[in-house]
Amino acid sequence: MAFRKGRLEGEVPERVARYISSLEEDEEILDEVLAVNAAHLRSLRRMGLISDDVLERALGALRGFPREALRTADPRLEDVHMVVEEHLRSEVPEAGENLALGKSRNDAVSAAIRMRVRRFIAELVLSGTGLAEPLLSKAEEYAETLFPLHTHEQPAAPGTLGFVLSCHASRLLKALRALASAYGEVNASPLGAGPVGGTSVPHDRLAIAEDLGFDGVVLNALEASSSRDFALAFLCGLLRVSLVLTDLAEELVRYVSQNPPLLDFDDAFFSTSSIMPHKRNPVVAEVARTSLSRVLGELVRFSVNVSRRFGGYVLDLQESTEPLWRAARWTLETLEAMAEMVRTLRPGPGAGTSIDPKTGLTEYAAWLTLTGRLTFRRAHLLCGRIASMLHSGASLESVEAYLTESGLDREAVAKLREFLEPRRVIGTYAVIGSSRPDEVRRSIGELVRECGELKAWATDRLRFEEERRARVLGGVR
Amino acid sequence: MAFRKGRLEGEVPERVARYISSLEEDEEILDEVLAVNAAHLRSLRRMGLISDDVLERALGALRGFPREALRTADPRLEDVHMVVEEHLRSEVPEAGENLALGKSRNDAVSAAIRMRVRRFIAELVLSGTGLAEPLLSKAEEYAETLFPLHTHEQPAAPGTLGFVLSCHASRLLKALRALASAYGEVNASPLGAGPVGGTSVPHDRLAIAEDLGFDGVVLNALEASSSRDFALAFLCGLLRVSLVLTDLAEELVRYVSQNPPLLDFDDAFFSTSSIMPHKRNPVVAEVARTSLSRVLGELVRFSVNVSRRFGGYVLDLQESTEPLWRAARWTLETLEAMAEMVRTLRPGPGAGTSIDPKTGLTEYAAWLTLTGRLTFRRAHLLCGRIASMLHSGASLESVEAYLTESGLDREAVAKLREFLEPRRVIGTYAVIGSSRPDEVRRSIGELVRECGELKAWATDRLRFEEERRARVLGGVR
Amino acid sequence: MAFRKGRLEGEVPERVARYISSLEEDEEILDEVLAVNAAHLRSLRRMGLISDDVLERALGALRGFPREALRTADPRLEDVHMVVEEHLRSEVPEAGENLALGKSRNDAVSAAIRMRVRRFIAELVLSGTGLAEPLLSKAEEYAETLFPLHTHEQPAAPGTLGFVLSCHASRLLKALRALASAYGEVNASPLGAGPVGGTSVPHDRLAIAEDLGFDGVVLNALEASSSRDFALAFLCGLLRVSLVLTDLAEELVRYVSQNPPLLDFDDAFFSTSSIMPHKRNPVVAEVARTSLSRVLGELVRFSVNVSRRFGGYVLDLQESTEPLWRAARWTLETLEAMAEMVRTLRPGPGAGTSIDPKTGLTEYAAWLTLTGRLTFRRAHLLCGRIASMLHSGASLESVEAYLTESGLDREAVAKLREFLEPRRVIGTYAVIGSSRPDEVRRSIGELVRECGELKAWATDRLRFEEERRARVLGGVR
Amino acid sequence: MAFRKGRLEGEVPERVARYISSLEEDEEILDEVLAVNAAHLRSLRRMGLISDDVLERALGALRGFPREALRTADPRLEDVHMVVEEHLRSEVPEAGENLALGKSRNDAVSAAIRMRVRRFIAELVLSGTGLAEPLLSKAEEYAETLFPLHTHEQPAAPGTLGFVLSCHASRLLKALRALASAYGEVNASPLGAGPVGGTSVPHDRLAIAEDLGFDGVVLNALEASSSRDFALAFLCGLLRVSLVLTDLAEELVRYVSQNPPLLDFDDAFFSTSSIMPHKRNPVVAEVARTSLSRVLGELVRFSVNVSRRFGGYVLDLQESTEPLWRAARWTLETLEAMAEMVRTLRPGPGAGTSIDPKTGLTEYAAWLTLTGRLTFRRAHLLCGRIASMLHSGASLESVEAYLTESGLDREAVAKLREFLEPRRVIGTYAVIGSSRPDEVRRSIGELVRECGELKAWATDRLRFEEERRARVLGGVR
Repeated sequence: MAFRKGRLEGEVPERVARYISSLEEDEEILDEVLAVNAAHLRSLRRMGLISDDVLERALGALRGFPREALRTADPRLEDVHMVVEEHLRSEVPEAGENLALGKSRNDAVSAAIRMRVRRFIAELVLSGTGLAEPLLSKAEEYAETLFPLHTHEQPAAPGTLGFVLSCHASRLLKALRALASAYGEVNASPLGAGPVGGTSVPHDRLAIAEDLGFDGVVLNALEASSSRDFALAFLCGLLRVSLVLTDLAEELVRYVSQNPPLLDFDDAFFSTSSIMPHKRNPVVAEVARTSLSRVLGELVRFSVNVSRRFGGYVLDLQESTEPLWRAARWTLETLEAMAEMVRTLRPGPGAGTSIDPKTGLTEYAAWLTLTGRLTFRRAHLLCGRIASMLHSGASLESVEAYLTESGLDREAVAKLREFLEPRRVIGTYAVIGSSRPDEVRRSIGELVRECGELKAWATDRLRFEEERRARVLGGVR
Repeated sequence: MAFRKGRLEGEVPERVARYISSLEEDEEILDEVLAVNAAHLRSLRRMGLISDDVLERALGALRGFPREALRTADPRLEDVHMVVEEHLRSEVPEAGENLALGKSRNDAVSAAIRMRVRRFIAELVLSGTGLAEPLLSKAEEYAETLFPLHTHEQPAAPGTLGFVLSCHASRLLKALRALASAYGEVNASPLGAGPVGGTSVPHDRLAIAEDLGFDGVVLNALEASSSRDFALAFLCGLLRVSLVLTDLAEELVRYVSQNPPLLDFDDAFFSTSSIMPHKRNPVVAEVARTSLSRVLGELVRFSVNVSRRFGGYVLDLQESTEPLWRAARWTLETLEAMAEMVRTLRPGPGAGTSIDPKTGLTEYAAWLTLTGRLTFRRAHLLCGRIASMLHSGASLESVEAYLTESGLDREAVAKLREFLEPRRVIGTYAVIGSSRPDEVRRSIGELVRECGELKAWATDRLRFEEERRARVLGGVR
Repeated sequence: MAFRKGRLEGEVPERVARYISSLEEDEEILDEVLAVNAAHLRSLRRMGLISDDVLERALGALRGFPREALRTADPRLEDVHMVVEEHLRSEVPEAGENLALGKSRNDAVSAAIRMRVRRFIAELVLSGTGLAEPLLSKAEEYAETLFPLHTHEQPAAPGTLGFVLSCHASRLLKALRALASAYGEVNASPLGAGPVGGTSVPHDRLAIAEDLGFDGVVLNALEASSSRDFALAFLCGLLRVSLVLTDLAEELVRYVSQNPPLLDFDDAFFSTSSIMPHKRNPVVAEVARTSLSRVLGELVRFSVNVSRRFGGYVLDLQESTEPLWRAARWTLETLEAMAEMVRTLRPGPGAGTSIDPKTGLTEYAAWLTLTGRLTFRRAHLLCGRIASMLHSGASLESVEAYLTESGLDREAVAKLREFLEPRRVIGTYAVIGSSRPDEVRRSIGELVRECGELKAWATDRLRFEEERRARVLGGVR
Repeated sequence: MAFRKGRLEGEVPERVARYISSLEEDEEILDEVLAVNAAHLRSLRRMGLISDDVLERALGALRGFPREALRTADPRLEDVHMVVEEHLRSEVPEAGENLALGKSRNDAVSAAIRMRVRRFIAELVLSGTGLAEPLLSKAEEYAETLFPLHTHEQPAAPGTLGFVLSCHASRLLKALRALASAYGEVNASPLGAGPVGGTSVPHDRLAIAEDLGFDGVVLNALEASSSRDFALAFLCGLLRVSLVLTDLAEELVRYVSQNPPLLDFDDAFFSTSSIMPHKRNPVVAEVARTSLSRVLGELVRFSVNVSRRFGGYVLDLQESTEPLWRAARWTLETLEAMAEMVRTLRPGPGAGTSIDPKTGLTEYAAWLTLTGRLTFRRAHLLCGRIASMLHSGASLESVEAYLTESGLDREAVAKLREFLEPRRVIGTYAVIGSSRPDEVRRSIGELVRECGELKAWATDRLRFEEERRARVLGGVR
């Protein structure tokens, strides 16, 4: 940066330059920075500060910017903005020399980050629906497959595999919607705000925003040039998604590790051990289950980093972008790996067979009350006793004898056996949203529709963005 | 819990009972638990399982529940749900004995938490607008008051106090909107889901939801009874608000600590030292500035706590509510304390006087380029040199001589003095959202409107909730 | 605080006073604050600034300080220090009026916190050994009890229950040692440092430190009055302990939830469900497993809170003590609850029986290599094949036929059956620290010794502290 | 991994293989993995399982391992261990084929991580003393330079620059000692533990430990193969260091930003703005101040990642090493950048001149009490009044008149002026550790000695490790 010498003396030692440079992380926003500069040049043209010819050549130079330049650049250039400016200065000096007129790195980097974040949101929502789809189609396929439901990690009630899978799909879709809801706040242009309080260069901020596909502007120039609140909204969305991924991965690890397994997947998602030849380790799910910890770690770093800001832009903010890219890339990769894995999901040998019959006693107790035989508390106490007897190995006959002895009528005693059959129990569920197969199918239908809407939205946003990028970097209009 | 003895032997030692009891935290949701039980009893009535008379008496017993009962209750009762059930069992046995019919603590507690969270959201948004209001009225009042703007914590540009304050207000309103946007997901009823996979008791889940003022239901019973994703959405909103509070408090601490101070407040918001008699410590702002760390700590605890859940409800979830209440209460108190403080805000002696004239050089460089005299990079280099000379104590005359020597024409040289006057500089800002007083006023108008909308929304939600609560706990309809 | 009116005007509104008051959290350090004041008064006596008589009466007033005074105090008094000073001013004015001479709340509160922390360390180490003891005695008792070992949550190798339990005990003892190692840094006196840079009151800092049982002083007055690094050391120790507790609790939840259970405990540590009568939920272990998330949340809050400090004491530090007490108390309660639970630990029905025979193949492969028959990679491949065959339900005979076909000699083929017997496999372990029963016993012996040393240290520290406290608050010597 | 096909079918898709591979992070431990393999081969030789010749050639192959192999390796090889084994299999099959005999990746990677961590500790302590040294020499140089001390970010007392710098040095040395104290726990060998519960291959675990320079072994095989407690101890040490770095950087940013600046540094540690030509931004300190947030983020990720482990090694642990390397490298770079910056530190124009005279009133109040004129509370109230008057612009004469009026004798009134001179005030400090220049010098001497000890320790550890590494990878002894 030649202009450094106007104000400061001496050179920055390379190690120190490297320490403060953001060139490495800036690769993630190179495309966006090029587009931002194109829009800025168009604004200069609108004000008559550069000619159509200069603009045309400058746009060509931006389109021809060599990606590898970031890796080989002198770290004393500090960041992508200066590398691009240097490139333009040597290719089209009339443009390069004026590139910083009414444009600071503060508003420019915020614009580039916002554009990259909005693209990530659409990509993530798209990949997220790419995981929701196999979850839902497997849920549909196994809507009738018996599956044990747990509370407190103990067998709790009979259910179906489709019910369990659609729960994960439902949570995932909600998380994706939460992520998508950050899009609006992200998608506002800070450009033209100047370094902190405005600029005397009469940029048409709305026109610049329009050129870059923003929905509007971040009005206040101080906020526009320094706030990272939009990025926190993005990380919060990622945290939501990562929580669902971690819970899903945890369940998959557990279900394949039960004896006998409740679920299974293709061998491709397992590794063996280099020393223990019998091992079949669910490595993909194990890695995926670390998602929450990763995103949470980035969120902590980010939040602390951006907080207690005094005034406008501080360089601490530069250190707050790496967490965004790391969290986003990880989540994207995990969504894709999990989607591939779920596509091979199938019930394990334990799915249909390992439901504890005692888990039907809850509905037996309800039946005793609904039919007016006992208050629920008495029925509960009686069923607790039945559970204890069965747990201790008592025969069904002795339990029945005990019930008769306790004063139950014959029909009620006979009814017990029905409630010890899991498939009959799930047939008794009488509320919407239950694990009864027909109800599961009905709710899947709704989720499929929601999934389709999200996918369409994401696809549309990505296409729009692609068009807008081509236009702003394309020829003079 | 008398029914414990059906399944388990022996008593829980008191210390252990205390360790697992949630009675203390449950105070926060007592009102909600009472309403949930009222709605449940109404559902039992709809199914004809209890009579109008029993319902009437049970509702009376719920209305008359003694709040202090939670504090004096035997910890072996575990939580508020059992204390309420015990109360009802002794007052209206026909209701109490059946209170758990088709209602588990899993769906009931989730409903109560959701109701408390939605109320907190409305309360927080209301208190938040209560802080935005004085920020905006002070911004209006000081829209013309000169104030230095900083980047990298160094003087950067001339601005106005109204501009700085409206930036905080704008961020706060966005954070409040983000918080309010969690309301929809929170406000869905899990009731009737049963403990994990549904229930054979034919509750009309939609009717129960309607009774409690929910917008709809969380359909999937597994999700309804165990997911805390809605609470993460709430905490994320609180994190957004706390970031704004911490940044605001940081700036207030700093502005009153500059020499001379840029801002001042009533003595009521300062303390002196017990040993240093001259001290005037900005204690309220200092305490408020810890908000981000508090909410972040609770968010970390919460996220880790609820993640890696296997199956439905686990008791880990019980430990995940305290973070919600702690974070919410703290944020509420801080919003209120800051509002009181901001109401006494006034410019300090340094506000108008301590703007570094060199901060006008940015617009001087822009002027040199806009008027076609120099490319921006050459103008920037020249102005960097001017800054160095002024920093080293050079006289304005010698700087002007240097400019003439550098080839600038007479008009350009003469122009320098104008750009060293802060008030003239802010008059040159030519973009929307700048710190130019008229632009600041214009943007405040917009923020006032947004603030009013949020306030109206929050007020409306609180009134609706109050009415619904009175209705569900009121007499048989 | 009457002296406030020298410097500041007007009163603090009660709500604001409550917001900045630390009276609630200060209860935790009341005893320490009283001792600190006693030591300070003795120092004033040494300098001849108060008489023996005044000292005697003042010590009496400190001993008689009514604990409930903190709860009923006017929040405008801000903290425990001012409440104690007010108490002394009314009881022994000659002492109370001079209590702040050469003593600031900055050094005083740091001293009190350090004293409370050092006591907590000793209490925690003591309670920690109280958990290590039953872990070790159960390990000894079940040193020969077969128990499956897992990697990747899958059956990995045959082992013994004593081996597993002694692993937890070993980790716990290391964590306790790490916690104890913070004691030295904590146990240095900041008293006499003044508010930030020293005082002209010629306190003998070493004598004050000696009076309070400190090992020495924090020399630099700025560090002494504002650093909380010692508290971070404490929290790091707690984090270590909480990680061990969470892992232990996780394993207990899992082992009791296997089918059939690998471990069991008394019913006192389980709850049933209010709706599902068959449930037996491991609630104590579930709650205990949240320990890491709790301590981590407090650590995050604390670290962020104390960081970016500018200059000496800031009020942010006041908000950094609650995390210490919350984390410490929780850890203490959990250690005690877990100790009670572990004392009732016994192998479940699955312990001896549910070891997958295939887990012996690792040592069979080693045997094939050690006896020179195959390289390890070939042996591993062959055993992988055996595992696949057995997994698919092949008979042992057909596996043996396959081995013969693969070229193995008769002895080698016959040897397979031995390695499918878990008890024989654990007998082959040939390294120190293995799960072979005699080796387990040997290592338990070492751990018992270490546990005893830690317990003796903690007991000694608590006794010493008690004596020192009695002495400093006792009569004039 | 050819052996995969014994147990599993089909290939892992490349994208999935890349998702679970740790090859990228493993570069950090390549040297250590090579050494671990060398020690393992020596153990096989001791048992007579390979010949001297095979060992010799295998050691040569390890020494010749091409570092770039990790980057070009097939991700299906999963990690560095398999890449090294493949390398050895192709170079020295007799060794490569048996490399996994009695050695699992679980104990091997733990050993390699421990070795890398212990080296990082020594490197960090060395670099840390490299920062402490210039801090201490600058403290010595400016032991008499007047400098304002702050509490609550407000002027609090007169002090000296040397006092402030030596406070940072003292905290840094304590943090380095805390870090160094983790060395012992880290430096124990897990090798020979097998995958989880031991091995039938009769490794001499103590001899292997000795070969690699470990102080002893982690006895329990389950703990050895899966615990990451040692790494948490390391991260806690890094957190301590990062807190000191963040606080130091914060103060440097603030001191150079005061008007006039209290400190200054060479221009090399500042950047200018690309748009604002007058800017001189303290970018190195700004970046350094993010240290706490970085390390804290990694600590959160790590802690959550390793917690709730069930059984022995899980692949989640693989994801727990990247945080270690990221936190360690960042801290190392920051220590070095800050050391370079501090070497150019000098007092700014404000250092000697900008001390608020009112900050001497604390000692004036003490003097009034020590000389028996007023109780401290009365003196404090009076001095508060003096401060208010001076703050409001009252002349010294009118203050003196007020004091006379208030009943102070002539000597006392005259004394006031002395206490309004900062240099005289610091001369009155009468306790050890104060900011009085001679006391500052005395305490610096002690810190220099401690710094030297730490440096010698770190240098010695690095040399020892270098020798041990050369020996184990060198020829057959």
